[in-house]
Amino acid sequence: MQSIRTIVLVGTGNVATRLGLALKRSGLVIRQVFGRTGLSAERLAAALGAAAVQTPEGIAPDADLYVLAVSDDAIADVAGTIKDRGRFMVHCSGSVPMDVLSPFTERYGVVYPLQTFSKDRELDFKTVPVCIEAGSIRDLDLLYGLAEGISGTVMTVPSDKRKLLHLAAVFACNFPNYMYAVADRLARSAGLDFEVLKPLILETARKVQEIPPTDAQTGPALRGDRKVLEAHLELLRHDPGTRDLYRMVSEEIGKHRSGK
Amino acid sequence: MQSIRTIVLVGTGNVATRLGLALKRSGLVIRQVFGRTGLSAERLAAALGAAAVQTPEGIAPDADLYVLAVSDDAIADVAGTIKDRGRFMVHCSGSVPMDVLSPFTERYGVVYPLQTFSKDRELDFKTVPVCIEAGSIRDLDLLYGLAEGISGTVMTVPSDKRKLLHLAAVFACNFPNYMYAVADRLARSAGLDFEVLKPLILETARKVQEIPPTDAQTGPALRGDRKVLEAHLELLRHDPGTRDLYRMVSEEIGKHRSGK
Repeated sequence: MQSIRTIVLVGTGNVATRLGLALKRSGLVIRQVFGRTGLSAERLAAALGAAAVQTPEGIAPDADLYVLAVSDDAIADVAGTIKDRGRFMVHCSGSVPMDVLSPFTERYGVVYPLQTFSKDRELDFKTVPVCIEAGSIRDLDLLYGLAEGISGTVMTVPSDKRKLLHLAAVFACNFPNYMYAVADRLARSAGLDFEVLKPLILETARKVQEIPPTDAQTGPALRGDRKVLEAHLELLRHDPGTRDLYRMVSEEIGKHRSGK
Repeated sequence: MQSIRTIVLVGTGNVATRLGLALKRSGLVIRQVFGRTGLSAERLAAALGAAAVQTPEGIAPDADLYVLAVSDDAIADVAGTIKDRGRFMVHCSGSVPMDVLSPFTERYGVVYPLQTFSKDRELDFKTVPVCIEAGSIRDLDLLYGLAEGISGTVMTVPSDKRKLLHLAAVFACNFPNYMYAVADRLARSAGLDFEVLKPLILETARKVQEIPPTDAQTGPALRGDRKVLEAHLELLRHDPGTRDLYRMVSEEIGKHRSGK
């Protein structure tokens, strides 16, 4: 069976950048980068040894794979723009069903890397779990081969489960990050720098690499320490949003404690 | 000025264990470990090259420092048990004011290590910020010397600011850990192992070591992506507590977005 060798990458954001670099490193040829914003496309294309394309007409018709690394809302639009029954297209979204691509081509799939990406942050892609899905067994095999080249963890995950995993990722990444932002504000209100919280944040994330999070839970809410909880709510009296958030998370932690 | 050389450690929990080991490593002598549960005290004493004591009468009267590494509620009790006007006592709590010790001795203070500790997890104490406070300049100097021996970051933090910092620590540690626990449940409901979320959790914590958390924020709530938010709430319909939590955190993230 033939494997994927040449790729057209659509998109110039964080995922496009990190995924593109990983694909190139795995030995694949990124032929073109298609992006609506010219400068970004040219910059990424240069980094990938690819050509930048700004109009759909310029897109190579015979690449082995078209990777749509664009925002959720743009996936169908882009697929419509480059549609061709024979082109193998994948999107990279956690929450968009694979079927969104089926009106535009007979060969479609998903390559969803479960990680938070920044354009400017290096990251070992080998550690990033990659979830794949495809409309046919043959194409799933092709994506498996591609994903194995960039990651040490490849999983076949159908759309309905991918959606749940994406929700889990919000709780694993976006929500903790917001908690860090609140912690930052509180430290500054005490005249201290966010710097002092960094070792705690890192150790908390490291701990659950070894211990299940329910076993790693500590703090006043878990102990049911009313005195400290009340004192904390009092400290937050001038920030009702954060106070309500504190109360709700503490109650949830308490529920699961009593449920033990 | 004389520095602290000999210590009596009260408590046998996570903080007592990690702090005791760090103090010993810095060259101080842990003379005794006082603990109500005999076996724990003996085990920790053995690890510290100290003697285990189980009755207040057995406590050495002439140690340079008495470290009360016990739960918040027990601090005053323990201080009452070992009270002596001349004994230098410190507690290790984030939320308890220093003054709780003043009825029991003329020399008191606080050594609060800002970290989450586990008995069984090794950890480089040099990276742990240590907040100190004392009732006199002389004793503050003594604690500074002691803290510098165990940590690369020593800060003088008065009780009212330490309380705020402790609240910040809840947002930096306990709450993210609870989010991990929810993520774990959701991944398992998709038939996937928590394992797949570990790289994401670690990278999220690593990111804010370099980028301020408000800049590192990503996800549907930040983008104001109603479609994904609604889909996620729908996925959580059978778990109202988590659904309400999702809604509230997302709203808070959204508020701070529009406030940008």
